[in-house]
Amino acid sequence: MVSTDLTLQPFYWRATNLFPEKEIVSRGPDGKTRYTYQKFGDRTRALAGALSALGVESGDRVGTVGWNTHRHYEAYFAIPLMGAQLHTINAVLPDDHVEYIVNDAQDEVLLVDPGEPFKTIERLWDRFDDVREVIVLSDEHPKTDLDCVSTVEELVADADPLEWPDLSEDQPAGMCYTSGTTGKPKGVEYTQKMIYSHAMMVATPSAIGVDESDVIMHVVPMYHVNSWEFPFSAAMAGAKQVYPGPSPDPATLARLIEEEEVTLTAGVPTVWINLLDYLDDHDADISSLDRIVVGGSAAPSAVMRRFEDEYDVVLEHAWGMTETMSIGSVSRPKSHMHGWSREKRFEKRAKQGLLSPGVEMKLVDDNGEELPWDGESVGELYVRGPTVVSEYYNRPEANEEGFEDGWLRTGDIATVDADGYLELVDRAKDIIKSGGEWISSIDLENELMEHDDITEAAVIAVPHDRWRERPVACIKPKSGADLTADDVLAFLEESYPRWWLPDNIIFVDSVPKTATGKFDKKRLRESYEDADLPRAPGGSSEGNENVGDDD
Amino acid sequence: MVSTDLTLQPFYWRATNLFPEKEIVSRGPDGKTRYTYQKFGDRTRALAGALSALGVESGDRVGTVGWNTHRHYEAYFAIPLMGAQLHTINAVLPDDHVEYIVNDAQDEVLLVDPGEPFKTIERLWDRFDDVREVIVLSDEHPKTDLDCVSTVEELVADADPLEWPDLSEDQPAGMCYTSGTTGKPKGVEYTQKMIYSHAMMVATPSAIGVDESDVIMHVVPMYHVNSWEFPFSAAMAGAKQVYPGPSPDPATLARLIEEEEVTLTAGVPTVWINLLDYLDDHDADISSLDRIVVGGSAAPSAVMRRFEDEYDVVLEHAWGMTETMSIGSVSRPKSHMHGWSREKRFEKRAKQGLLSPGVEMKLVDDNGEELPWDGESVGELYVRGPTVVSEYYNRPEANEEGFEDGWLRTGDIATVDADGYLELVDRAKDIIKSGGEWISSIDLENELMEHDDITEAAVIAVPHDRWRERPVACIKPKSGADLTADDVLAFLEESYPRWWLPDNIIFVDSVPKTATGKFDKKRLRESYEDADLPRAPGGSSEGNENVGDDD
Repeated sequence: MVSTDLTLQPFYWRATNLFPEKEIVSRGPDGKTRYTYQKFGDRTRALAGALSALGVESGDRVGTVGWNTHRHYEAYFAIPLMGAQLHTINAVLPDDHVEYIVNDAQDEVLLVDPGEPFKTIERLWDRFDDVREVIVLSDEHPKTDLDCVSTVEELVADADPLEWPDLSEDQPAGMCYTSGTTGKPKGVEYTQKMIYSHAMMVATPSAIGVDESDVIMHVVPMYHVNSWEFPFSAAMAGAKQVYPGPSPDPATLARLIEEEEVTLTAGVPTVWINLLDYLDDHDADISSLDRIVVGGSAAPSAVMRRFEDEYDVVLEHAWGMTETMSIGSVSRPKSHMHGWSREKRFEKRAKQGLLSPGVEMKLVDDNGEELPWDGESVGELYVRGPTVVSEYYNRPEANEEGFEDGWLRTGDIATVDADGYLELVDRAKDIIKSGGEWISSIDLENELMEHDDITEAAVIAVPHDRWRERPVACIKPKSGADLTADDVLAFLEESYPRWWLPDNIIFVDSVPKTATGKFDKKRLRESYEDADLPRAPGGSSEGNENVGDDD
Repeated sequence: MVSTDLTLQPFYWRATNLFPEKEIVSRGPDGKTRYTYQKFGDRTRALAGALSALGVESGDRVGTVGWNTHRHYEAYFAIPLMGAQLHTINAVLPDDHVEYIVNDAQDEVLLVDPGEPFKTIERLWDRFDDVREVIVLSDEHPKTDLDCVSTVEELVADADPLEWPDLSEDQPAGMCYTSGTTGKPKGVEYTQKMIYSHAMMVATPSAIGVDESDVIMHVVPMYHVNSWEFPFSAAMAGAKQVYPGPSPDPATLARLIEEEEVTLTAGVPTVWINLLDYLDDHDADISSLDRIVVGGSAAPSAVMRRFEDEYDVVLEHAWGMTETMSIGSVSRPKSHMHGWSREKRFEKRAKQGLLSPGVEMKLVDDNGEELPWDGESVGELYVRGPTVVSEYYNRPEANEEGFEDGWLRTGDIATVDADGYLELVDRAKDIIKSGGEWISSIDLENELMEHDDITEAAVIAVPHDRWRERPVACIKPKSGADLTADDVLAFLEESYPRWWLPDNIIFVDSVPKTATGKFDKKRLRESYEDADLPRAPGGSSEGNENVGDDD
């Protein structure tokens, strides 16, 4: 029995044949572009035809450096459907990373947004090994000395639409690099089958639930695990899609939600905190919005409550990694919990939730022993499943560290409670090993973020002679707030033992961030590991007597 | 990149680990059995251990002849998860068919319900080639002369639970035979990957939408394309399940819906028509019920309306075949149709609807040319996709007829409208070729079923010298109704041209049915092809002048 391969082909078929009139809306510098799946399908075939004419063949890698636009979305289907591999490249990485990633992936053609992304590629041109063509995702030809540059609009206008070839489910269709907060970025490849399986999984109500009646606004950057893979589920379901363009501000997001009647969106907490702030001072009707999927880090519960109370919008925590194709778990109460008190439900919702269908997990301690699901035992999260990668591209040494007996070692330190809800305690590399015990930097950060006068908070480990490591908090106060280190420590002391309290509180103008918008703790650690910091008044490292010393 | 295989393993893992307390309820002769997914998981592993001890190995076929019970459900997971193949056998087939099917599949062990199914197996024992063990799905040992019979309860009690082996996604996990209204029954095999893909597809809101909060009652027989594969989606989602036991009557179904708060169920129209009749005369609270998925044949629109108006239950038409693992399309209005009039929406809902994700289709005429989607052009439906089989088991000559260039020839005659909605016109073998035109037996039957005094109606072709074929209707009137052939013809004439009207109206006590409950048109055709039937008054074969003759 040979069954038909799982590829993106039927998603394209379904969107363009069953929902030819459904709209894709894309915001650009000159306002909105609005077209149908039918037009999308035609342009996709034309783009594939153009790439084919440029010599792109099955198995070749085509890189994209772009924002969330319809033109980028066309590449999402054109490249895999012609049998090539879509390699989405983070548009805000430092030059060295872009150079490394493009060369490591052996990208032959790059599709690049005008402006900064194009300038980056132009600047790095001589450092690329294999790139021979650059296609600008625009209708305007940039001023450039490079002679292998065309615009996607001129290519699409002139191209012979491609007849889609037969595809194998095992051929690589996508590629992403992890953000690389430690060491060199690591590439992972997604096969046709993996993208198919992940999109179907996301569409089930057990994960996110994506339906034809949804209007999905893609706020997660399209280079960030393919905007958490929502664009694929959306096409499969025939949902209307909204692409908000480069770095949309809260005003733009609010306007798009109102005008396009967005029902579902996703992104990191900061985006939604900023949207709340904007809505405090501006009128916008976001009543169409049902759900926001939040990942990357946890949203403060105050933010979840405000969205629910004031806007009837449910924020759902999700967990995932580049290695799990984004969404791997989602937190919502089980049906029998609906009768619980709101507080108790929020305790569950604050977690990373239940693994999505297809994925399995276990918690493992330092000795490789499996830990019980008691909500207390802390260990490293291992996962496996059809949407979990099984290796890094071309990085045997990373594979050895990252995988074990068919399981991905996530590097996330977590607990699982008796109801099966996963809760991240910390990243393995961020957790603070103080004496023989662990202090969760994430716990402290989440608590700090609940303080009315704190806008950003990152907690890092600094080396300590006696306790091995001690926590230090970097805090950006709300503008105009009158906040002292003592205030901060007193606030934390309400919820945490003294030995958890940071030895130092450092007030900063802004917490440095990685290219994907996460707090850059690696940089913070480097900045502060040798610094002779003034001890915060009330700092508590001397109160650590209850903790055994493992040195 | 080798990704993890798509198998049933993660469904079992998710149900037993994330929803260990969720219930499975099973109605038997002594009342209800009620246990948790945890217990289900334990019993499933024990059953697999017992089968393993009986010598069942990876690749072996294990047949089941059973009703909808928890014991049968355990076999649904135990057999595929141990690497063997679950072969569900229709419990009400004639002996010759059962003999043929069991021998064709080379079943080695049979799991059989007590009562009639066991008697059938006992009676046929000497005619089986490979069967060596019979396990009765009961805790009572039947009186029998066979010496290789045990009960599942004694086996499970004594067994060492099996440690699940690694599975390959391409190994066959299931097997069903088509109902065989023409020729020998044909077997199809479902791989692990196909069951995984179909369950995920069914769970998406684009198909049925199955969620943890659902309570799913399996009314479709478990030997009928694995109860339309709902049991697999249910486990994946962690939904509560209700198994209503052997041939549940409307009173039982109504009581189970009320007591277990069923939200979702599925079955052929007759079941729901009978339930409506029952509810007319009896009190039962079915307010938990949201949706009934209806397939096999179309539900009369009056039935759909009554369920909606009186019980707030939505009936959704679905289409599928054994060859498409059941569900292949579902009919509900697209979101932009919600503003339409109810009549217009019902026109769409009466169709078989939109293909489910993963499946593609085309309409093909007698010359192999693809037909437009205009709602008028009538042709054979071809489908393909990861949930569509690509061959019949061990039947090269049937493959030649049934498949073409990777497409399944469904044998269904259909139209597709401009909105992409599939509508079945007839089975290729049932359509009536009168003159050069086609008359849909299904159209006439659906119209007849709308008549208040008609309970069952089957329309068949009988040979005709001049027109090649002419329609004849077999009708079971409502008991006590005073209905004449003239009444019936006059009723049809309101909606159809004279040349569509049946040449004869035959009143019967009951329309004969196949083992799967469909009208047995093959038997009807055989009964009436040579009969010298009295011409119905007003019969219209002489009014066929507007139709060209293709002889």
